Amino acid sequence: MRISEHSRAVVLLSGGVDSTTTLAIARDAGYRLYALTIQYGQRHAAEIAAAERVARAFRVDRHLTVPVDLRAFGGSALTDDIPVPHGKPSDPIPPGIPTTYVPARNTIFLSLALAWAEVLESEDVFIGVNALDYSGYPDCRPEFIEAFERMARLATRAGVEGKQNLTIHTPLIALSKREIIQRGLDLGVDYGMTLSCYEPSRTGAPCGTCDACRLRAKGFAEAGIRDPAVRAA
Amino acid sequence: MRISEHSRAVVLLSGGVDSTTTLAIARDAGYRLYALTIQYGQRHAAEIAAAERVARAFRVDRHLTVPVDLRAFGGSALTDDIPVPHGKPSDPIPPGIPTTYVPARNTIFLSLALAWAEVLESEDVFIGVNALDYSGYPDCRPEFIEAFERMARLATRAGVEGKQNLTIHTPLIALSKREIIQRGLDLGVDYGMTLSCYEPSRTGAPCGTCDACRLRAKGFAEAGIRDPAVRAA
Repeated sequence: MRISEHSRAVVLLSGGVDSTTTLAIARDAGYRLYALTIQYGQRHAAEIAAAERVARAFRVDRHLTVPVDLRAFGGSALTDDIPVPHGKPSDPIPPGIPTTYVPARNTIFLSLALAWAEVLESEDVFIGVNALDYSGYPDCRPEFIEAFERMARLATRAGVEGKQNLTIHTPLIALSKREIIQRGLDLGVDYGMTLSCYEPSRTGAPCGTCDACRLRAKGFAEAGIRDPAVRAA
Repeated sequence: MRISEHSRAVVLLSGGVDSTTTLAIARDAGYRLYALTIQYGQRHAAEIAAAERVARAFRVDRHLTVPVDLRAFGGSALTDDIPVPHGKPSDPIPPGIPTTYVPARNTIFLSLALAWAEVLESEDVFIGVNALDYSGYPDCRPEFIEAFERMARLATRAGVEGKQNLTIHTPLIALSKREIIQRGLDLGVDYGMTLSCYEPSRTGAPCGTCDACRLRAKGFAEAGIRDPAVRAA
């Protein structure tokens, strides 16, 4: 890759499989890592602890956790009094956009990443969105990411002054969950640190039946390996 | 205007001249008003109190103040240990983007407005950006607003499902400060409630010498009226 050894990347990190794999890919490409976690009032606040474990294990240059309480707006099973859907592990994920969709979440996350990138003089933002084995969220699609990138290049002082030509990197966007996990394992990721569940127990153990748990279990099953986080739980 | 009596508008409200005038324009157009104030760790936190005064005076349907601490990123005279520039009231505003530029601020504000608009089933977001008598901020330009709108239409569930065709309204974008103030006065705005200063005193009195105070003073001078907030201070 054509990056200099001082190139900094802002990597959105939730502490789940996808963002942790994305962090590993950015590290492998040679970037200095600036991990950004958003505490948005999510039901599954245990994922903040997972993000901290991951950031420590990766020895990132800096890990920022920024609170933005999206419960103020509500409208999602993750931020409001709306039940999280559960199903049998073997059930397929239903089509359509589920109630766990959080209005404008990735737009907000990428906007905050853009702000930090400008201050860091970074041109590279990484986000672990995936449009294949995913939950149907509109803000995970390539056309959304491309439109965000176009907008972001007009949004900042650094962009206007020609000092920043922002790229939103989405290395997982076309991968299956199995491929994501295999890529991470190739890069030495210990998925035992990660948490994907939307509704973990108070001790942070995954429920096993929400969409996020089921997508994760499907990925590990297809990769033919045992999920170390489930074993640990 | 072709809006129904139940149309809701999300209006970004800082409590200054521009956002207050924008709120008056949205009210005049017949919208139900949902005012959104972002407490971003700005030096001039007195503007939150001004936004509350304005929201009360306009009897908005709802006023939300959402904290997002942009001091975590810094990089601006408004959120970091960088001095706010001051000048004589008669000095022209220097060209270029000043240190009071806050990285990605309007992108972040509009993203939060987008989230609330989706939950409210609103298609209309108002922001009082101005590209004429302004401080040279890149995220006040029409090309930025257009790119944000394009992105926003791809970002949400409501957009994807055809239930939301978002418009970002920028009624002030081509007006001078004098024209903005005259428009507001025509609509009955009491500018005595508003605060524009970047570095007010502890009691909330404007400094009179920052760019925001000087742009405001120029606008009132050109409109040929006394600024009621300065008289009150």
